[in-house]
Amino acid sequence: MIKLYHHPYSRAAAAVWMLEELGLEEGTGYELSFVDLKKLEQRSDAYRTLNPMAKIPTLVDGDALVTETGAVGLYLADRYSPGHLAPELDDPARAAYLRWILFGPSVMEPAAATRASGWEVNPVSVGWGSWEAMLAATRAAIGEGPWLLGDRFTMADVCFGSTLRFLVQFKMLPPEPLFLDYIERLNARPAAQRAAAINERVVAERGLGG
Amino acid sequence: MIKLYHHPYSRAAAAVWMLEELGLEEGTGYELSFVDLKKLEQRSDAYRTLNPMAKIPTLVDGDALVTETGAVGLYLADRYSPGHLAPELDDPARAAYLRWILFGPSVMEPAAATRASGWEVNPVSVGWGSWEAMLAATRAAIGEGPWLLGDRFTMADVCFGSTLRFLVQFKMLPPEPLFLDYIERLNARPAAQRAAAINERVVAERGLGG
Repeated sequence: MIKLYHHPYSRAAAAVWMLEELGLEEGTGYELSFVDLKKLEQRSDAYRTLNPMAKIPTLVDGDALVTETGAVGLYLADRYSPGHLAPELDDPARAAYLRWILFGPSVMEPAAATRASGWEVNPVSVGWGSWEAMLAATRAAIGEGPWLLGDRFTMADVCFGSTLRFLVQFKMLPPEPLFLDYIERLNARPAAQRAAAINERVVAERGLGG
Repeated sequence: MIKLYHHPYSRAAAAVWMLEELGLEEGTGYELSFVDLKKLEQRSDAYRTLNPMAKIPTLVDGDALVTETGAVGLYLADRYSPGHLAPELDDPARAAYLRWILFGPSVMEPAAATRASGWEVNPVSVGWGSWEAMLAATRAAIGEGPWLLGDRFTMADVCFGSTLRFLVQFKMLPPEPLFLDYIERLNARPAAQRAAAINERVVAERGLGG
């Protein structure tokens, strides 16, 4: 069974959504292993053996150990949903699929964090470029929608979309109608709702609520 | 023929290495389209239609258009070298392969840029964590070597390795023997040397030398 190292207030929440999009079920297809971030369990020697970054998610599937949320999405979709949540390797749609999965953690997140912190960077030298270029690229990626690959929903929407949703929620990206409409479409997905319920259940079980 | 939008002093230099690792040849398998960064051609409307980030590389392969260096590596290896430069989709080695490809642009680069600029970040909130954790993870990734997947060289080494090499060269990562030895192994690869010669030829042709 797939094991996901998890905390509901972390990027691992998006990994639950990924697993639910695959049609896997908690208890039979995957299990959650709670990492108590408040007790700094992510910095324990045992956990750092899995992921020296002391970050979640970490996903273990037999002999496969994946970290980095984008890599978890790529791994799961290629392994369990080729041709569906991941375009086949010879499908030209693969190009946009990969592009937007990489875009979230390596462009959207650092560009938004840079802006939010008032940090001055040279957009030519940093990989994530300028705030304006990032916004332009994010808008172009969503485009006419409904999904990043047009009519086709893929794991790229979970990766890119969960990052976008997080950044809008925390006011690190502007609440543009284009972004809000896309997030609403994402939130309407049954798998996103099942994942939200699971994440909320863990919040309640662990007494993490505010 | 594959078209790579290129400038030798950019991340596109690594994309030439990727193409050479695939065994493709300039002129028959791929062509370089020079983007004059000094003239800001990357900000032209025509180029921004391809990549609103105004960044290179951008790679066009028929109907496939890829940006983001990690995505270019993933695309090329899966499309032209499945089972060789990219592990097969059901190979557990795929997990580490994806993990280290994501690691370069979303952890190593922003963590090094943060450190180099003296920017204060909360390592819990940013995806790239702390400088120390990034260094620990980078060391663990290289490990005993010779490659990220042990005896097996993959496109992950080109992606992760070109970022590491760049950051060490520009003193944004320390010149630890573990890093230098790995870079030396990378530089010894015939494809890396062919790519370096091509990049240097463009420097000479375009009069870009210092």
